[in-house]
Amino acid sequence: MPNVSDRREALREALVNAAERTIAKRGLAHLRARDLAQEAGCAVGAIYNVFPELDALILTVNLRTLNLFEASIAVPPRGEGGRAIEDLVNLALAYLDFAALNPHRWRALFEHRMSDGAPPPGWYLSEQGRLFRYIEEPLRALCPGLGEEERSLLARSLFSATHGMVALGLDEKLMTLPPAVLRREIQRVVRATGEGLAAKSLS
Amino acid sequence: MPNVSDRREALREALVNAAERTIAKRGLAHLRARDLAQEAGCAVGAIYNVFPELDALILTVNLRTLNLFEASIAVPPRGEGGRAIEDLVNLALAYLDFAALNPHRWRALFEHRMSDGAPPPGWYLSEQGRLFRYIEEPLRALCPGLGEEERSLLARSLFSATHGMVALGLDEKLMTLPPAVLRREIQRVVRATGEGLAAKSLS
Repeated sequence: MPNVSDRREALREALVNAAERTIAKRGLAHLRARDLAQEAGCAVGAIYNVFPELDALILTVNLRTLNLFEASIAVPPRGEGGRAIEDLVNLALAYLDFAALNPHRWRALFEHRMSDGAPPPGWYLSEQGRLFRYIEEPLRALCPGLGEEERSLLARSLFSATHGMVALGLDEKLMTLPPAVLRREIQRVVRATGEGLAAKSLS
Repeated sequence: MPNVSDRREALREALVNAAERTIAKRGLAHLRARDLAQEAGCAVGAIYNVFPELDALILTVNLRTLNLFEASIAVPPRGEGGRAIEDLVNLALAYLDFAALNPHRWRALFEHRMSDGAPPPGWYLSEQGRLFRYIEEPLRALCPGLGEEERSLLARSLFSATHGMVALGLDEKLMTLPPAVLRREIQRVVRATGEGLAAKSLS
């Protein structure tokens, strides 16, 4: 007979799986404790025994999304001088493709706010930070004069710029761009930015 | 005694003003027909006589926001060759400042979706398009070889990239950047992009 800890772990897994299915298929806004309980075969109150706040449940799903994105990066940056700009372009395209293929999962990364308004917990932030290193590596080759903190800031800024192009480009409201055009635009802007950064760093 | 058309116009103005106050102070999510009617001194049903869909009311407020942003551009681009990159940087900083000073108004530009899922009406899109010309002018000097359509696409891509940096930079969730750091990062990335575009265009 499974002990309490095993049963708790099994319920935790069932809840995360149920939440992941809902977020992936219908989006974060459709996540309801009642539906989760039904899918996981428990009482609504039992959810709160495992996840006192739904934040941790949602962030666990978002972490799976971050891992899925990481696995989707077909050409990991190699940080070699001559390929640094292509590495940045490939990362931006991988981000576009992931967002286009997993719209609900992807939006949930940005839609979720901690219920107490605090920043997300360290375990989540450190995984998020790990992904930024994929951008920091090519930047190390491209702008060798940048200090570690500057490089980390720049990696986040480049991510934000790419995110803006992906988010508005996939949003039918502000502009509807055919996928091939959006792709080419992202390539064009990321490449120009990389070239400008490299030129700056050489001058 | 005011005629029907005058009264209708006065009610329209009162409703737009009331909606503008709510959106500017509390955000689009707090807009309620009941509150609007109370503020404008009319019955709830009277709102729908003037604005059969609330979309047109919200877009009228958003148009005022676009105009306010346009008026805030302290240094309009002059489209001269040597200043084109600085023009792009100044536009990006004007956008950052506007978003930081008018967070609710600014977010409403992106939060609103037409109730029927259609694109916004032509009168709104053409005003939105007019603002993109502020970016197109420096691009004309920077990349003289680009055709009109390419330039228009690139202007929107540069806007999206800047929007991403502003939106995530002002969002306490993904990263909390001190205002001076966010400013410097936006300058750095926009300048690098401008330099990369200019170099490309010369090569």
